[in-house]
Amino acid sequence: MKGKAYIVGAGPGDPDLITVKALKILKEADVVIYDRLIPLKVLDYCKNDCELIYAGKSPGKHEMEQEEINEIIVKKTMEGKKVVRLKGGDPYIFGRGEEECYYAISHGIDCEVVPGIPSFIGASVYSGIPLTNRKLSSSFSVITGREAEEKHSKTVKVEEIAKSSDTIVIMMGVSTLKENLEKIANVRGYDESCAIVMNATTEMQKVVTGSIKEVLDNYDKLSLENPAIIIVGKTIKMRDNLWKKS
Amino acid sequence: MKGKAYIVGAGPGDPDLITVKALKILKEADVVIYDRLIPLKVLDYCKNDCELIYAGKSPGKHEMEQEEINEIIVKKTMEGKKVVRLKGGDPYIFGRGEEECYYAISHGIDCEVVPGIPSFIGASVYSGIPLTNRKLSSSFSVITGREAEEKHSKTVKVEEIAKSSDTIVIMMGVSTLKENLEKIANVRGYDESCAIVMNATTEMQKVVTGSIKEVLDNYDKLSLENPAIIIVGKTIKMRDNLWKKS
Repeated sequence: MKGKAYIVGAGPGDPDLITVKALKILKEADVVIYDRLIPLKVLDYCKNDCELIYAGKSPGKHEMEQEEINEIIVKKTMEGKKVVRLKGGDPYIFGRGEEECYYAISHGIDCEVVPGIPSFIGASVYSGIPLTNRKLSSSFSVITGREAEEKHSKTVKVEEIAKSSDTIVIMMGVSTLKENLEKIANVRGYDESCAIVMNATTEMQKVVTGSIKEVLDNYDKLSLENPAIIIVGKTIKMRDNLWKKS
Repeated sequence: MKGKAYIVGAGPGDPDLITVKALKILKEADVVIYDRLIPLKVLDYCKNDCELIYAGKSPGKHEMEQEEINEIIVKKTMEGKKVVRLKGGDPYIFGRGEEECYYAISHGIDCEVVPGIPSFIGASVYSGIPLTNRKLSSSFSVITGREAEEKHSKTVKVEEIAKSSDTIVIMMGVSTLKENLEKIANVRGYDESCAIVMNATTEMQKVVTGSIKEVLDNYDKLSLENPAIIIVGKTIKMRDNLWKKS
Protein backbone atom coordinates (compact mmCIF):
# COMPACT_ATOMS: atom_id res chain seq x y z
CA MET A 1 0.00 0.00 0.00
CA LYS A 2 1.33 3.41 -0.96
CA GLY A 3 1.01 6.21 1.57
CA LYS A 4 0.44 9.85 0.87
CA ALA A 5 1.11 13.03 2.82
CA TYR A 6 -1.13 16.09 2.81
CA ILE A 7 -0.06 19.51 4.08
CA VAL A 8 -3.43 21.03 4.94
CA GLY A 9 -4.53 24.51 6.01
CA ALA A 10 -7.20 24.37 8.72
CA GLY A 11 -8.10 28.04 8.38
CA PRO A 12 -7.97 30.90 10.91
CA GLY A 13 -9.82 29.47 13.92
CA ASP A 14 -13.57 29.20 13.37
CA PRO A 15 -13.95 25.42 12.80
CA ASP A 16 -16.49 26.09 10.02
CA LEU A 17 -13.90 28.03 8.04
CA ILE A 18 -12.17 24.81 7.04
CA THR A 19 -12.66 23.85 3.39
CA VAL A 20 -14.73 20.95 2.11
CA LYS A 21 -11.55 19.55 0.56
CA ALA A 22 -9.64 19.61 3.84
CA LEU A 23 -12.57 17.94 5.57
CA LYS A 24 -12.75 15.10 3.04
CA ILE A 25 -9.03 14.43 3.52
CA LEU A 26 -9.25 14.63 7.33
CA LYS A 27 -12.08 12.08 7.38
CA GLU A 28 -9.86 9.50 5.65
CA ALA A 29 -6.60 10.24 7.47
CA ASP A 30 -4.72 7.50 9.34
CA VAL A 31 -2.43 9.99 11.07
CA VAL A 32 -2.96 13.70 11.81
CA ILE A 33 -0.03 15.83 13.00
CA TYR A 34 -1.59 19.08 14.20
CA ASP A 35 -0.38 22.49 15.32
CA ARG A 36 -1.18 24.52 18.41
CA LEU A 37 -3.32 27.06 16.57
CA ILE A 38 -5.74 24.86 14.67
CA PRO A 39 -9.42 24.73 15.69
CA LEU A 40 -9.38 21.51 17.75
CA LYS A 41 -13.02 20.83 16.94
CA VAL A 42 -12.09 19.80 13.38
CA LEU A 43 -10.31 16.77 14.82
CA ASP A 44 -13.79 15.39 15.60
CA TYR A 45 -14.08 14.61 11.89
CA CYS A 46 -11.23 12.08 12.11
CA LYS A 47 -11.78 8.33 12.15
CA ASN A 48 -11.93 6.68 15.58
CA ASP A 49 -8.64 4.91 15.03
CA CYS A 50 -6.86 7.91 13.54
CA GLU A 51 -3.55 8.59 15.29
CA LEU A 52 -3.45 12.19 16.53
CA ILE A 53 0.00 13.70 17.08
CA TYR A 54 0.35 17.11 18.70
CA ALA A 55 3.20 19.15 17.23
CA GLY A 56 2.42 22.28 19.22
CA LYS A 57 4.78 24.94 18.11
CA SER A 58 5.51 27.85 20.32
CA PRO A 59 7.40 30.96 19.21
CA GLY A 60 11.18 30.69 19.31
CA LYS A 61 11.27 26.92 19.46
CA HIS A 62 10.83 26.10 15.80
CA GLU A 63 14.21 24.92 14.71
CA MET A 64 14.40 21.62 16.57
CA GLU A 65 10.79 20.63 16.29
CA GLN A 66 10.55 21.25 12.57
CA GLU A 67 13.08 18.51 11.83
CA GLU A 68 11.16 16.05 13.97
CA ILE A 69 7.89 16.95 12.26
CA ASN A 70 9.46 16.48 8.83
CA GLU A 71 10.75 13.08 9.85
CA ILE A 72 7.43 11.92 11.32
CA ILE A 73 5.60 12.90 8.12
CA VAL A 74 8.00 10.86 6.01
CA LYS A 75 8.17 7.89 8.39
CA LYS A 76 4.40 7.49 8.76
CA THR A 77 3.77 7.96 5.05
CA MET A 78 6.38 5.34 4.20
CA GLU A 79 4.41 2.92 6.41
CA GLY A 80 1.67 3.20 3.77
CA LYS A 81 -0.49 5.62 5.75
CA LYS A 82 -2.52 8.61 4.73
CA VAL A 83 -0.83 11.35 6.74
CA VAL A 84 -2.26 14.83 7.29
CA ARG A 85 -0.07 17.67 8.51
CA LEU A 86 -2.72 20.11 9.77
CA LYS A 87 -1.68 23.72 10.15
CA GLY A 88 -3.43 26.95 11.16
CA GLY A 89 -4.29 29.38 8.35
CA ASP A 90 -2.72 28.60 4.98
CA PRO A 91 0.36 26.34 4.75
CA TYR A 92 2.23 28.72 2.41
CA ILE A 93 1.73 31.96 4.40
CA PHE A 94 4.49 32.04 7.03
CA GLY A 95 3.55 28.42 7.74
CA ARG A 96 6.65 26.55 6.64
CA GLY A 97 4.36 24.22 4.71
CA GLU A 98 6.68 24.60 1.74
CA GLU A 99 9.57 23.27 3.83
CA GLU A 100 7.56 20.22 4.89
CA CYS A 101 6.35 19.57 1.35
CA TYR A 102 9.88 19.99 -0.02
CA TYR A 103 11.25 17.56 2.55
CA ALA A 104 8.57 14.97 1.80
CA ILE A 105 8.93 15.19 -1.98
CA SER A 106 12.74 15.07 -1.82
CA HIS A 107 12.36 11.84 0.18
CA GLY A 108 10.22 10.31 -2.56
CA ILE A 109 6.92 10.79 -0.77
CA ASP A 110 3.72 11.64 -2.63
CA CYS A 111 2.66 14.95 -1.08
CA GLU A 112 -0.24 17.32 -1.80
CA VAL A 113 -0.82 20.79 -0.33
CA VAL A 114 -4.32 22.06 0.47
CA PRO A 115 -4.84 25.81 0.93
CA GLY A 116 -6.65 27.28 3.92
CA ILE A 117 -8.08 30.69 4.70
CA PRO A 118 -5.09 32.64 6.04
CA SER A 119 -5.48 34.02 9.56
CA PHE A 120 -5.11 37.59 8.28
CA ILE A 121 -8.09 37.09 5.94
CA GLY A 122 -10.19 35.77 8.81
CA ALA A 123 -9.08 38.68 10.99
CA SER A 124 -10.00 41.17 8.28
CA VAL A 125 -13.50 39.85 7.65
CA TYR A 126 -14.49 38.99 11.24
CA SER A 127 -13.30 42.37 12.52
CA GLY A 128 -14.99 44.35 9.73
CA ILE A 129 -11.76 45.74 8.28
CA PRO A 130 -11.38 45.18 4.52
CA LEU A 131 -7.80 45.13 3.27
CA THR A 132 -8.74 46.78 0.00
CA ASN A 133 -11.26 49.40 -1.05
CA ARG A 134 -11.47 51.42 -4.24
CA LYS A 135 -11.16 54.74 -2.48
CA LEU A 136 -8.92 53.83 0.45
CA SER A 137 -6.60 50.97 -0.46
CA SER A 138 -5.45 49.52 -3.76
CA SER A 139 -2.59 47.50 -2.26
CA PHE A 140 -1.71 45.62 0.89
CA SER A 141 1.46 44.09 2.27
CA VAL A 142 1.75 41.17 4.62
CA ILE A 143 4.84 40.83 6.78
CA THR A 144 5.88 38.81 9.80
CA GLY A 145 6.64 40.53 13.09
CA ARG A 146 8.71 37.61 14.23
CA GLU A 147 11.55 37.60 11.72
CA ALA A 148 14.11 38.65 14.31
CA GLU A 149 13.70 35.35 16.12
CA GLU A 150 14.31 33.27 13.03
CA LYS A 151 17.81 32.45 11.86
CA HIS A 152 18.55 33.00 8.17
CA SER A 153 15.47 35.15 7.77
CA LYS A 154 15.40 38.14 5.46
CA THR A 155 14.93 41.56 6.96
CA VAL A 156 11.53 43.17 6.53
CA LYS A 157 11.76 46.77 5.29
CA VAL A 158 8.91 48.10 7.40
CA GLU A 159 9.43 51.78 6.59
CA GLU A 160 9.68 51.10 2.86
CA ILE A 161 6.51 49.05 3.04
CA ALA A 162 4.76 51.87 4.92
CA LYS A 163 5.67 54.15 2.02
CA SER A 164 4.55 51.84 -0.77
CA SER A 165 1.50 49.84 0.38
CA ASP A 166 -1.83 51.28 1.47
CA THR A 167 -2.71 48.64 4.05
CA ILE A 168 -0.09 46.86 6.16
CA VAL A 169 -0.72 43.51 7.84
CA ILE A 170 1.69 42.21 10.47
CA MET A 171 1.36 38.58 11.44
CA MET A 172 2.65 37.25 14.78
CA GLY A 173 3.45 40.84 15.60
CA VAL A 174 2.81 41.44 19.30
CA SER A 175 6.40 41.10 20.53
CA THR A 176 7.68 43.61 17.96
CA LEU A 177 4.56 45.80 17.88
CA LYS A 178 6.06 48.93 19.43
CA GLU A 179 9.11 49.11 17.19
CA ASN A 180 7.10 48.37 14.06
CA LEU A 181 4.44 50.98 14.87
CA GLU A 182 7.19 53.54 15.49
CA LYS A 183 8.69 52.75 12.08
CA ILE A 184 5.30 53.08 10.38
CA ALA A 185 4.55 56.34 12.27
CA ASN A 186 7.86 57.78 11.03
CA VAL A 187 6.41 57.54 7.54
CA ARG A 188 2.69 58.09 8.04
CA GLY A 189 2.45 59.99 11.30
CA TYR A 190 1.06 58.94 14.68
CA ASP A 191 -2.56 59.58 13.69
CA GLU A 192 -2.60 56.62 11.29
CA SER A 193 -5.23 54.03 12.24
CA CYS A 194 -4.21 50.70 13.65
CA ALA A 195 -6.08 47.56 14.73
CA ILE A 196 -4.97 44.51 16.69
CA VAL A 197 -7.16 41.43 16.17
CA MET A 198 -6.47 38.73 18.76
CA ASN A 199 -7.69 35.12 18.42
CA ALA A 200 -9.30 36.05 15.11
CA THR A 201 -12.56 34.26 14.18
CA THR A 202 -12.66 32.25 17.43
CA GLU A 203 -15.03 32.67 20.38
CA MET A 204 -12.24 34.58 22.13
CA GLN A 205 -11.75 37.14 19.36
CA LYS A 206 -10.88 40.57 20.73
CA VAL A 207 -10.25 43.67 18.64
CA VAL A 208 -8.41 46.82 19.74
CA THR A 209 -8.41 49.86 17.45
CA GLY A 210 -7.00 53.36 17.69
CA SER A 211 -4.41 55.69 16.27
CA ILE A 212 -0.81 54.53 16.48
CA LYS A 213 -0.33 57.18 19.19
CA GLU A 214 -3.24 55.82 21.23
CA VAL A 215 -2.02 52.24 20.98
CA LEU A 216 1.54 53.19 21.97
CA ASP A 217 0.38 55.46 24.83
CA ASN A 218 -1.92 52.78 26.27
CA TYR A 219 0.22 49.79 25.41
CA ASP A 220 0.57 48.46 28.95
CA LYS A 221 -3.18 48.60 29.61
CA LEU A 222 -4.20 46.82 26.40
CA SER A 223 -3.23 43.28 27.47
CA LEU A 224 -2.17 42.39 23.94
CA GLU A 225 -1.31 38.77 23.37
CA ASN A 226 -0.63 36.34 20.54
CA PRO A 227 -2.05 35.05 18.31
CA ALA A 228 -2.69 38.50 16.92
CA ILE A 229 -2.97 40.12 13.51
CA ILE A 230 -2.07 43.80 13.29
CA ILE A 231 -3.63 45.92 10.56
CA VAL A 232 -2.54 49.48 9.78
CA GLY A 233 -4.28 51.72 7.26
CA LYS A 234 -7.20 53.86 6.20
CA THR A 235 -9.74 51.03 5.78
CA ILE A 236 -9.95 50.60 9.55
CA LYS A 237 -12.31 53.58 9.62
CA MET A 238 -14.86 51.53 7.61
CA ARG A 239 -15.26 49.19 10.56
CA ASP A 240 -18.19 50.95 12.21
CA ASN A 241 -20.37 50.41 9.15
CA LEU A 242 -19.52 46.79 8.34
CA TRP A 243 -20.34 43.38 9.76
CA LYS A 244 -18.10 42.26 12.56
CA LYS A 245 -18.21 39.27 14.83
CA SER A 246 -19.90 40.34 18.04
CA MET B 1 -40.17 37.20 8.89
CA LYS B 2 -36.84 38.99 9.02
CA GLY B 3 -34.47 38.49 6.13
CA LYS B 4 -30.73 38.42 6.24
CA ALA B 5 -28.01 39.04 3.66
CA TYR B 6 -24.73 37.15 3.46
CA ILE B 7 -21.74 38.32 1.45
CA VAL B 8 -19.94 35.03 0.89
CA GLY B 9 -16.57 34.12 -0.61
CA ALA B 10 -16.78 31.00 -2.78
CA GLY B 11 -13.01 30.54 -2.97
CA PRO B 12 -10.65 30.51 -5.95
CA GLY B 13 -12.28 28.01 -8.33
CA ASP B 14 -11.98 24.40 -7.14
CA PRO B 15 -15.53 23.75 -5.84
CA ASP B 16 -14.10 21.83 -2.86
CA LEU B 17 -12.21 24.92 -1.71
CA ILE B 18 -15.44 26.48 -0.44
CA THR B 19 -15.71 26.56 3.36
CA VAL B 20 -18.07 24.47 5.46
CA LYS B 21 -19.62 27.72 6.72
CA ALA B 22 -20.34 29.02 3.21
CA LEU B 23 -21.86 25.66 2.31
CA LYS B 24 -24.22 25.65 5.30
CA ILE B 25 -25.45 29.14 4.36
CA LEU B 26 -25.83 28.25 0.66
CA LYS B 27 -27.97 25.23 1.52
CA GLU B 28 -30.50 27.43 3.31
CA ALA B 29 -30.50 30.37 0.89
CA ASP B 30 -33.73 31.59 -0.72
CA VAL B 31 -31.85 33.78 -3.22
CA VAL B 32 -28.28 33.52 -4.53
CA ILE B 33 -26.77 36.37 -6.55
CA TYR B 34 -23.60 34.97 -8.05
CA ASP B 35 -20.59 36.29 -9.94
CA ARG B 36 -19.00 35.16 -13.17
CA LEU B 37 -15.93 33.63 -11.51
CA ILE B 38 -17.45 31.38 -8.87
CA PRO B 39 -17.27 27.60 -9.25
CA LEU B 40 -20.75 26.93 -10.68
CA LYS B 41 -20.81 23.45 -9.18
CA VAL B 42 -21.35 24.89 -5.69
CA LEU B 43 -24.79 26.07 -6.81
CA ASP B 44 -25.82 22.38 -6.78
CA TYR B 45 -25.95 22.70 -2.98
CA CYS B 46 -28.83 25.20 -3.20
CA LYS B 47 -32.44 24.25 -2.47
CA ASN B 48 -34.59 23.33 -5.48
CA ASP B 49 -36.66 26.47 -5.16
CA CYS B 50 -33.70 28.79 -4.53
CA GLU B 51 -33.77 31.77 -6.88
CA LEU B 52 -30.44 32.01 -8.75
CA ILE B 53 -29.52 35.43 -10.13
CA TYR B 54 -26.48 35.82 -12.36
CA ALA B 55 -24.64 39.09 -11.77
CA GLY B 56 -21.81 38.28 -14.18
CA LYS B 57 -19.34 41.07 -13.92
CA SER B 58 -16.94 41.65 -16.74
CA PRO B 59 -13.98 44.04 -16.55
CA GLY B 60 -14.76 47.68 -17.21
CA LYS B 61 -18.50 47.34 -16.68
CA HIS B 62 -18.65 47.49 -12.89
CA GLU B 63 -20.03 50.90 -12.18
CA MET B 64 -23.59 50.42 -13.42
CA GLU B 65 -24.04 46.86 -12.36
CA GLN B 66 -22.80 47.35 -8.82
CA GLU B 67 -25.70 49.68 -8.01
CA GLU B 68 -28.19 47.16 -9.32
CA ILE B 69 -26.60 44.37 -7.29
CA ASN B 70 -26.72 46.48 -4.14
CA GLU B 71 -30.39 47.21 -4.72
CA ILE B 72 -31.31 43.59 -5.40
CA ILE B 73 -29.59 42.46 -2.18
CA VAL B 74 -31.57 44.99 -0.15
CA LYS B 75 -34.88 44.43 -1.96
CA LYS B 76 -34.83 40.64 -1.63
CA THR B 77 -33.71 40.73 1.99
CA MET B 78 -36.48 43.19 2.86
CA GLU B 79 -38.93 40.62 1.48
CA GLY B 80 -37.85 38.45 4.41
CA LYS B 81 -35.55 36.21 2.41
CA LYS B 82 -32.17 34.70 3.19
CA VAL B 83 -30.04 36.26 0.47
CA VAL B 84 -26.53 35.13 -0.47
CA ARG B 85 -24.25 37.33 -2.52
CA LEU B 86 -21.73 34.76 -3.76
CA LYS B 87 -18.36 36.07 -4.93
CA GLY B 88 -15.16 34.50 -6.23
CA GLY B 89 -12.22 34.41 -3.79
CA ASP B 90 -12.64 36.49 -0.63
CA PRO B 91 -15.21 39.31 -0.50
CA TYR B 92 -12.76 41.81 1.03
CA ILE B 93 -9.85 41.28 -1.39
CA PHE B 94 -10.55 43.50 -4.40
CA GLY B 95 -14.07 42.09 -4.31
CA ARG B 96 -16.15 45.14 -3.39
CA GLY B 97 -17.83 43.02 -0.72
CA GLU B 98 -17.26 45.85 1.72
CA GLU B 99 -19.28 48.18 -0.53
CA GLU B 100 -22.16 45.72 -0.67
CA CYS B 101 -22.08 45.10 3.07
CA TYR B 102 -21.90 48.85 3.76
CA TYR B 103 -24.88 49.48 1.48
CA ALA B 104 -26.94 46.75 3.10
CA ILE B 105 -26.17 47.80 6.67
CA SER B 106 -26.79 51.48 5.93
CA HIS B 107 -30.24 50.42 4.64
CA GLY B 108 -31.02 48.68 7.91
CA ILE B 109 -30.39 45.16 6.61
CA ASP B 110 -28.85 42.45 8.77
CA CYS B 111 -25.71 41.46 6.86
CA GLU B 112 -22.89 38.99 7.56
CA VAL B 113 -19.67 38.50 5.63
CA VAL B 114 -18.10 35.06 5.18
CA PRO B 115 -14.44 34.87 4.13
CA GLY B 116 -13.24 32.69 1.26
CA ILE B 117 -9.84 31.50 0.11
CA PRO B 118 -8.53 34.37 -2.02
CA SER B 119 -7.71 33.50 -5.61
CA PHE B 120 -4.05 34.46 -5.08
CA ILE B 121 -3.77 31.91 -2.24
CA GLY B 122 -5.27 29.20 -4.45
CA ALA B 123 -2.91 30.19 -7.28
CA SER B 124 0.08 30.03 -4.94
CA VAL B 125 -0.65 26.58 -3.53
CA TYR B 126 -1.93 24.88 -6.70
CA SER B 127 1.01 26.16 -8.75
CA GLY B 128 3.61 25.21 -6.13
CA ILE B 129 4.80 28.77 -5.50
CA PRO B 130 4.81 29.77 -1.81
CA LEU B 131 4.48 33.51 -1.16
CA THR B 132 6.75 33.34 1.87
CA ASN B 133 9.80 31.32 2.81
CA ARG B 134 12.33 31.90 5.58
CA LYS B 135 15.25 32.22 3.21
CA LEU B 136 13.60 33.80 0.18
CA SER B 137 10.63 35.95 1.21
CA SER B 138 9.60 37.52 4.50
CA SER B 139 7.00 39.84 2.95
CA PHE B 140 4.54 39.94 0.09
CA SER B 141 2.41 42.63 -1.49
CA VAL B 142 -0.87 42.19 -3.30
CA ILE B 143 -1.96 44.79 -5.83
CA THR B 144 -4.56 45.06 -8.54
CA GLY B 145 -3.51 45.39 -12.16
CA ARG B 146 -6.83 46.91 -13.11
CA GLU B 147 -6.80 50.13 -11.11
CA ALA B 148 -6.51 52.29 -14.22
CA GLU B 149 -9.96 51.23 -15.33
CA GLU B 150 -11.58 52.16 -12.04
CA LYS B 151 -12.68 55.69 -11.30
CA HIS B 152 -11.62 57.17 -7.96
CA SER B 153 -9.05 54.43 -7.51
CA LYS B 154 -5.76 55.08 -5.78
CA THR B 155 -2.60 54.69 -7.78
CA VAL B 156 -0.51 51.61 -7.09
CA LYS B 157 3.17 52.42 -6.58
CA VAL B 158 4.52 49.39 -8.40
CA GLU B 159 8.18 50.43 -8.35
CA GLU B 160 8.08 51.28 -4.65
CA ILE B 161 6.47 47.93 -3.95
CA ALA B 162 9.16 46.17 -6.00
CA LYS B 163 11.73 47.83 -3.73
CA SER B 164 10.06 46.99 -0.43
CA SER B 165 8.33 43.60 -0.70
CA ASP B 166 10.01 40.30 -1.48
CA THR B 167 7.12 38.70 -3.37
CA ILE B 168 4.69 40.69 -5.53
CA VAL B 169 1.23 39.42 -6.44
CA ILE B 170 -0.77 41.18 -9.14
CA MET B 171 -4.45 40.30 -9.39
CA MET B 172 -6.46 40.84 -12.57
CA GLY B 173 -3.20 41.84 -14.15
CA VAL B 174 -3.11 40.60 -17.75
CA SER B 175 -4.12 43.85 -19.45
CA THR B 176 -1.41 45.83 -17.63
CA LEU B 177 1.15 43.02 -17.45
CA LYS B 178 3.77 44.51 -19.77
CA GLU B 179 3.90 47.92 -18.12
CA ASN B 180 3.94 46.43 -14.61
CA LEU B 181 6.72 43.95 -15.45
CA GLU B 182 8.75 46.81 -16.96
CA LYS B 183 8.34 48.80 -13.74
CA ILE B 184 9.40 45.83 -11.62
CA ALA B 185 12.36 45.09 -13.92
CA ASN B 186 13.52 48.70 -13.50
CA VAL B 187 14.05 47.89 -9.84
CA ARG B 188 15.01 44.22 -9.84
CA GLY B 189 16.36 43.60 -13.31
CA TYR B 190 14.99 41.51 -16.16
CA ASP B 191 16.24 38.22 -14.74
CA GLU B 192 13.75 38.31 -11.86
CA SER B 193 11.41 35.29 -11.89
CA CYS B 194 7.79 35.68 -12.83
CA ALA B 195 4.79 33.34 -13.01
CA ILE B 196 1.35 33.76 -14.53
CA VAL B 197 -1.29 31.40 -13.12
CA MET B 198 -4.45 31.32 -15.23
CA ASN B 199 -7.76 29.84 -14.06
CA ALA B 200 -6.12 28.94 -10.77
CA THR B 201 -7.29 25.75 -9.01
CA THR B 202 -9.76 24.86 -11.79
CA GLU B 203 -9.52 22.05 -14.34
CA MET B 204 -8.31 24.67 -16.83
CA GLN B 205 -5.41 25.90 -14.69
CA LYS B 206 -2.38 26.85 -16.78
CA VAL B 207 0.92 28.17 -15.42
CA VAL B 208 3.56 30.08 -17.35
CA THR B 209 6.91 30.80 -15.69
CA GLY B 210 10.10 32.50 -16.78
CA SER B 211 12.27 35.52 -16.23
CA ILE B 212 10.62 38.90 -16.81
CA LYS B 213 12.71 39.15 -19.98
CA GLU B 214 11.45 35.79 -21.26
CA VAL B 215 7.82 36.66 -20.57
CA LEU B 216 8.12 40.06 -22.26
CA ASP B 217 10.03 38.65 -25.26
CA ASN B 218 7.49 35.87 -25.81
CA TYR B 219 4.42 37.80 -24.76
CA ASP B 220 2.49 37.37 -28.03
CA LYS B 221 3.01 33.59 -28.09
CA LEU B 222 1.93 32.98 -24.49
CA SER B 223 -1.85 33.39 -25.03
CA LEU B 224 -2.28 34.96 -21.62
CA GLU B 225 -5.84 35.55 -20.54
CA ASN B 226 -7.85 36.48 -17.46
CA PRO B 227 -8.56 35.37 -14.84
CA ALA B 228 -4.87 35.34 -14.01
CA ILE B 229 -2.70 35.85 -10.96
CA ILE B 230 0.82 37.14 -11.56
CA ILE B 231 3.54 36.33 -9.04
CA VAL B 232 7.01 37.90 -9.11
CA GLY B 233 9.84 36.90 -6.79
CA LYS B 234 12.47 34.44 -5.68
CA THR B 235 10.11 31.75 -4.34
CA ILE B 236 9.11 30.81 -7.90
CA LYS B 237 12.32 28.79 -8.11
CA MET B 238 10.96 26.45 -5.40
CA ARG B 239 8.25 25.29 -7.76
CA ASP B 240 10.09 22.30 -9.21
CA ASN B 241 10.34 20.66 -5.80
CA LEU B 242 6.82 21.28 -4.48
CA TRP B 243 3.37 19.87 -5.11
CA LYS B 244 1.55 21.44 -8.00
CA LYS B 245 -1.74 20.63 -9.62
CA SER B 246 -1.02 18.51 -12.68
